[in-house]
Amino acid sequence: MSIFAVVIFLFLGSVEGFSTKTHPCTYSKDRECKPALFNALFSTVSFLLGAITSVVSGYLGMKIATYANARTTLEARKGVGKAFITAFRSGSVMGFLLASNGLLVLYITINLFKIYYGDDWEGLFESITGYGLGGSSMALFGRVGGGIYTKAADVGADLVGKVERNIPEDDPRNPAVIADNVGDNVGDIAGMGSDLFGSYAESSCAALVVASISSFGVNHDFTGMCFPLLVSSMGIIVCLITTLFATDFFEIKAVKEIEPALKKQLIISTALMTVGIALVSWLALPYKFTIFNFGEQKEVTNWGLFLCVSIGLWAGLIIGYVTEYYTSNAYSPVQDVADACRTGAATNVIFGLALGYKSVIIPIFAISIGIYVSFTIAAMYGIAVAALGMLSTIATGLSIDAYGPISDNAGGIAEMAGMSHRIRERTDALDAAGNTTAAIGKGFAIGSAALVSLALFGAFVSRAGVKVVDVLSPKVIIGLVVGAMLPYWFSAMTMKSVGSAALKMVEEVRRQFNTIPGLMEGTGKPDYANCVKISTDASIKEMIPPGALVMLTPLIVGTFFGVQTLSGVLAGALVSGVQVAISASNTGGAWDNAKKYIEAGVSEHARSLGPKGSDCHKAAVIGDTIGDPLKDTSGPSLNILIKLMAVESLVFAPFFATHGGLLFKIF
Amino acid sequence: MSIFAVVIFLFLGSVEGFSTKTHPCTYSKDRECKPALFNALFSTVSFLLGAITSVVSGYLGMKIATYANARTTLEARKGVGKAFITAFRSGSVMGFLLASNGLLVLYITINLFKIYYGDDWEGLFESITGYGLGGSSMALFGRVGGGIYTKAADVGADLVGKVERNIPEDDPRNPAVIADNVGDNVGDIAGMGSDLFGSYAESSCAALVVASISSFGVNHDFTGMCFPLLVSSMGIIVCLITTLFATDFFEIKAVKEIEPALKKQLIISTALMTVGIALVSWLALPYKFTIFNFGEQKEVTNWGLFLCVSIGLWAGLIIGYVTEYYTSNAYSPVQDVADACRTGAATNVIFGLALGYKSVIIPIFAISIGIYVSFTIAAMYGIAVAALGMLSTIATGLSIDAYGPISDNAGGIAEMAGMSHRIRERTDALDAAGNTTAAIGKGFAIGSAALVSLALFGAFVSRAGVKVVDVLSPKVIIGLVVGAMLPYWFSAMTMKSVGSAALKMVEEVRRQFNTIPGLMEGTGKPDYANCVKISTDASIKEMIPPGALVMLTPLIVGTFFGVQTLSGVLAGALVSGVQVAISASNTGGAWDNAKKYIEAGVSEHARSLGPKGSDCHKAAVIGDTIGDPLKDTSGPSLNILIKLMAVESLVFAPFFATHGGLLFKIF
Repeated sequence: MSIFAVVIFLFLGSVEGFSTKTHPCTYSKDRECKPALFNALFSTVSFLLGAITSVVSGYLGMKIATYANARTTLEARKGVGKAFITAFRSGSVMGFLLASNGLLVLYITINLFKIYYGDDWEGLFESITGYGLGGSSMALFGRVGGGIYTKAADVGADLVGKVERNIPEDDPRNPAVIADNVGDNVGDIAGMGSDLFGSYAESSCAALVVASISSFGVNHDFTGMCFPLLVSSMGIIVCLITTLFATDFFEIKAVKEIEPALKKQLIISTALMTVGIALVSWLALPYKFTIFNFGEQKEVTNWGLFLCVSIGLWAGLIIGYVTEYYTSNAYSPVQDVADACRTGAATNVIFGLALGYKSVIIPIFAISIGIYVSFTIAAMYGIAVAALGMLSTIATGLSIDAYGPISDNAGGIAEMAGMSHRIRERTDALDAAGNTTAAIGKGFAIGSAALVSLALFGAFVSRAGVKVVDVLSPKVIIGLVVGAMLPYWFSAMTMKSVGSAALKMVEEVRRQFNTIPGLMEGTGKPDYANCVKISTDASIKEMIPPGALVMLTPLIVGTFFGVQTLSGVLAGALVSGVQVAISASNTGGAWDNAKKYIEAGVSEHARSLGPKGSDCHKAAVIGDTIGDPLKDTSGPSLNILIKLMAVESLVFAPFFATHGGLLFKIF
Repeated sequence: MSIFAVVIFLFLGSVEGFSTKTHPCTYSKDRECKPALFNALFSTVSFLLGAITSVVSGYLGMKIATYANARTTLEARKGVGKAFITAFRSGSVMGFLLASNGLLVLYITINLFKIYYGDDWEGLFESITGYGLGGSSMALFGRVGGGIYTKAADVGADLVGKVERNIPEDDPRNPAVIADNVGDNVGDIAGMGSDLFGSYAESSCAALVVASISSFGVNHDFTGMCFPLLVSSMGIIVCLITTLFATDFFEIKAVKEIEPALKKQLIISTALMTVGIALVSWLALPYKFTIFNFGEQKEVTNWGLFLCVSIGLWAGLIIGYVTEYYTSNAYSPVQDVADACRTGAATNVIFGLALGYKSVIIPIFAISIGIYVSFTIAAMYGIAVAALGMLSTIATGLSIDAYGPISDNAGGIAEMAGMSHRIRERTDALDAAGNTTAAIGKGFAIGSAALVSLALFGAFVSRAGVKVVDVLSPKVIIGLVVGAMLPYWFSAMTMKSVGSAALKMVEEVRRQFNTIPGLMEGTGKPDYANCVKISTDASIKEMIPPGALVMLTPLIVGTFFGVQTLSGVLAGALVSGVQVAISASNTGGAWDNAKKYIEAGVSEHARSLGPKGSDCHKAAVIGDTIGDPLKDTSGPSLNILIKLMAVESLVFAPFFATHGGLLFKIF
């Protein structure tokens, strides 16, 4: 982070040759704007603030989740309702922590920066974009590093423990069992949290930077400028009310009430938030205002902007529910995949891949309609607020998402502590509901990532002074083609990273089983810490190549090929990456739940495929293992790829616009 | 075809309301152009001619391949060299038949149409585009239908014969064995042939239509106009000479000489063709001429155009060799995949998918450099001739491609006819070399499809009068996003089609084994014809949904959303489809050869994984089965998706430009 902060400062400072003179503003010629050197300095500061906020929120969230694991197990002794409330409330801490910390730090930073910038809102909000880059850079560690961590530990623990030594999951004799539990927290809590925090910070910054050169910024209407922040504030209040529906207004009495209660959270928050957005749009916005639209101004009404935010909000709900349909074993798609296990692992994999491909269709149409409507109403500002709309219920989304790994680990603790069978049954029921909501959360994260990157892309072209990105120009088309290739390159890297990291874990677990006396008999104590260390080290080391690909691509393309090619790369990576991410996540989720469907044996059909250990079940396990890196590492990591490249381009836009395209200048 | 011919006539005829009056030309205002009604008529005629040429060439190619199968088996008694010459020469017939038929019919059609059109070259070459659409529409049947056919028969024969009844491959007791052999001809000969014929016809049409509104067309320089045809003619001569290197100049004496001889064909033809292109460019083109570039004219020199054609040619060679590197088991990527089988099928699949993703990188860079150079030199005309450059050695490419299934079936016939073990060994050696060249051919087909679709896309926007396709407009961006989704939708359909068709085959084979007395003992005779019928019927029926998706998308998008959104859809499908196609084909090819690597056991490493029937081998077989639909159906079918949508848009461009975008006009 420190090194990258220096890079930001040097690149942005060089835009005006490190001069300390003020100059007329780009969009309001009659005003004086601050020198690029100070924009570079403040961008660096906001970058560090974004990174620190993400780290602190993730750290606190993980800390609370770790405490909550054991507490949920203890509450499970009293009944499933009590355990549910503990797990859900702990998850909420993470959700509200991120949403409110993100908002608070952003608001304070804007006000502090304003003391220096005064009238120069162009410079002010340009430097604020560093905040989004900081948040998103940490998400690289959380999502990609976390994804490698969790799957290395998971696969390593399973391959030696379950397969070679034939001991159950979560058995304390397995040296990698703690690393596996830690991995759930790292990947699903810190990873998902930092990903969504990044989206949230980025879409706010994208909206702010576009607004700063629109009528809000030019006329210094601070309330209008703060519309994105107000939407998020309203979101926190709505989510607080929504939480009460799960914990206070109704009581969970039976196991089968858990999943509907969690899913109801999404609908309630979306419905309430629609009213909330209407309120904010009506109170904070003038009836008519103009928005910057690539060189022109576009007139927008407050109810038009209300529509933009709402369409993003509801598109998120649709994506969530479609994801659920394709990954929950309550519906036919996953049941068909389970059925394909009859003819072996190969047909299971073929049907799973086909399911993933198919599951892309409706989310893409939902996103497209959202893009079309919001873009038509309010250009790139519309897309940025649509993304904010989708993310406005982030607190609820993160709550039900973090609830999953907390319940999962509660089960692990019950097993390891040798607690009674009934307690394990209760935590298993909590966990099962969490699996479905985790899939919804992933769909949600990808959908918002698509909107956010598009908004960032729009903000980038605005800042870089690009008026047209013409597919009919060679610079753009090669950018598009190469950009569309990047998700594949990136996925190849992350999938290989999981493989190598898992291999190291396997070796360590084997070594401990072979060298520690009495380990299998339960008299020797395994070295848990060493496994945790291996996962940590491996994940950070293996993160370097994909991380470098993400961080260096915009810098190299922008510097050597210029803003036109970079625009092509961003658009290409966006349109291709969304598809790969959705299909990979859903394919993996479907295989996971197809296996669980056969194991649970709830219906006549499921029992005909089972039980555990049957040929069908073995075929399903192969699918599940293939799906692990797809759904937990390479798929969600693509969110980071498309967002981080876009926000990095946005921050470096002034540099690329001034010094970019070296290669074309030389030849 | 007949129905679609009527659609073409009605849509294009309606452009000027079925009027029979002439009007001033669009690009040469001082000339009179023929009415749209007659353009519609001639487009329909050239559409039918393209379709018929493709069918006739494919039919003759398959007929010869069928004869050649048995003859190769017989020649194999005399030695491997003789058998090689028979197989290779028969493959050449297919290659030269397609290349020369395509060229001849196109040349005659142009000259016949010229009698009516006279001075109106805009109308003449606009109606010629129907030829490309006709050729490509037949490729839908050949590639998609053929792909479903061959894999349904293959999987059906294997699942019951090899797995359930434990009889060897190509055993005459298996009722589906003939369908399987027929499938090799249908998928690999007719499918690949019609695909490349389509590319060839389309890139010629794209080049011609752009040239017709450039200086060649405006100044009526017929020799310059015919440059694309002259390049192809030179290609046929070069390929004829190249063939002699394989059959006459050197003699194949040992098995290990076969593969180098085939691969040398590609290098020799590429090297000779570079000289050939230089000759044609020097003799047929004026030193300077202007090319139409979206509303402007661009000056091009003859050596500039030489560079465009050559870069396409050499990019094809690079793609071919990279494909070989990633799919041949002589190199480390496939060996790593084979090694991953140690830890089971799941790691095999994960490593195979990662390999496919990784194999996209270099081909995409090769294509991008080709696009950038040729686009910069001669706009979309440059890309069209670059595609033609890549396809100029089509006769050689098809020869070594068709050689594969001929050798494969020769082996099957040797087995079924109960010939001696030594003959089977020789045909197996021929087959092994054919597997590698088949992978090269597939890479080649995808690479050319990418260039061709881009050329068609350029021709489409030229004809539709579009000057800018701006990613920063909502109509284009939603087109891009939805277009990038189409390859996934299409792949989901084709993969499911193979599954359903294979299931029908399995049922029929099971039925015959159960009901025909003495079948297993070899005294009863299976009903081969019924299996062939099932594969035929199923492939045509299952082809309807993916076929409808391809054929209807441009019509629906163009009519209701207009040319801007359609441009976005075409660009999105192109940039995303190429990646899916390359990765699917190479993943499948790698799994196939990883299995063969273990089976052959040539090296110490390979023997440590084998032998046949070991756990590693079983894991490799699962990968191979998953790869079958990926590499032979869904992957190559995507070529058709991206090309056919583009050429259809080109043919209907005048209609979309006049009547398109209904939805936006209403709201």
